Amino acid sequence: MRRLSHYLRSLEGFEEQDGGTVSSEELAARGQTTAAQVRKDLSHFGSFGKRGLGYRVDELRSSLRQILGIDRPWRVALVGAGRVGLALFEYPAFRSRGYQCVAILDSDPDKIGTVCGDLTIRAPADLEDVIGELDVELIILALPASAAQGVAGRAVEAGIKGILNFAPVRLNVPPRVPVEDVNLVMELEALSFAITQAERDA
Amino acid sequence: MRRLSHYLRSLEGFEEQDGGTVSSEELAARGQTTAAQVRKDLSHFGSFGKRGLGYRVDELRSSLRQILGIDRPWRVALVGAGRVGLALFEYPAFRSRGYQCVAILDSDPDKIGTVCGDLTIRAPADLEDVIGELDVELIILALPASAAQGVAGRAVEAGIKGILNFAPVRLNVPPRVPVEDVNLVMELEALSFAITQAERDA
Repeated sequence: MRRLSHYLRSLEGFEEQDGGTVSSEELAARGQTTAAQVRKDLSHFGSFGKRGLGYRVDELRSSLRQILGIDRPWRVALVGAGRVGLALFEYPAFRSRGYQCVAILDSDPDKIGTVCGDLTIRAPADLEDVIGELDVELIILALPASAAQGVAGRAVEAGIKGILNFAPVRLNVPPRVPVEDVNLVMELEALSFAITQAERDA
Repeated sequence: MRRLSHYLRSLEGFEEQDGGTVSSEELAARGQTTAAQVRKDLSHFGSFGKRGLGYRVDELRSSLRQILGIDRPWRVALVGAGRVGLALFEYPAFRSRGYQCVAILDSDPDKIGTVCGDLTIRAPADLEDVIGELDVELIILALPASAAQGVAGRAVEAGIKGILNFAPVRLNVPPRVPVEDVNLVMELEALSFAITQAERDA
């Protein structure tokens, strides 16, 4: 799935440059994979491209957007208006990919009621109302570990479909609700692990 | 490797509570995996624990820190002092895990020379000097895609060992230098993909 995201990014680069067609070799080179892997990945989702002619950039791009589920907007609520949460909110690609932040909640009394972009920050107690009234489908949890499970459980009860979780805790939610964990310290640990193991093996 | 990070987090929770020993079942429950998986993961790195007695929390914790390479400090430079970069810099777990931010660089003339925590923000042109003088081992790239490859290439030449990359681009660096990519929009795409596929299959 990650590779599909990378292919889409590559295609967007091509399209700006020249349009037309692209070969699996070209996609592979940009995605640091092989042409065979590109063909295999894409064949899972249907029949794209013609042997010897490559893929039509505009068609493949639109198919990938459909497969990734970003051919339509997603309504997102941000819980936790700290630096990380707000960084995401202001990230241009967030909007251009169709993720619409329709609500921001924060437990800080100094933040509740203040305006952020075109939204007024609401209290965590409003979570269920916000999800119901605004048809929120995804929530972004950018809050301390101690608060994350409680909010996640309430959000699932209220009908959200997926969670992007920045809190350093494993959330316990039903399997039908996918969770993507982003743990920045764990990413650093992956680096120090790789370097340490390589040095040990050398 | 991700599971090892999770086990360490679990162990830290146990230690604060009561110390003593922990069974693979208890570790599995907190890590949402199985006891057999815990035993298999840990056995890769040596012989821990005694059958029927479990693992000594303090010993296993210290072994995991060694395996993950965080039993010693890492010197880190942050390139790009935007919201995401600074969020990481201020994240308490970043320091407590031994990651020391020893330099911050940013291309914004208004930021260069200003003080951030106990560091003075330096210009990207100083990258090689900073890495050499301050023994920087890891860099965090929190800058636009267009600038990331250039900075990464220079940092690798200057001797860094690993890269945490927030720029939405695949970096081309030698295989000996591990790269961890954090792409927040790609995390959201993973969610919309999972939800879309599940709805399609239902």
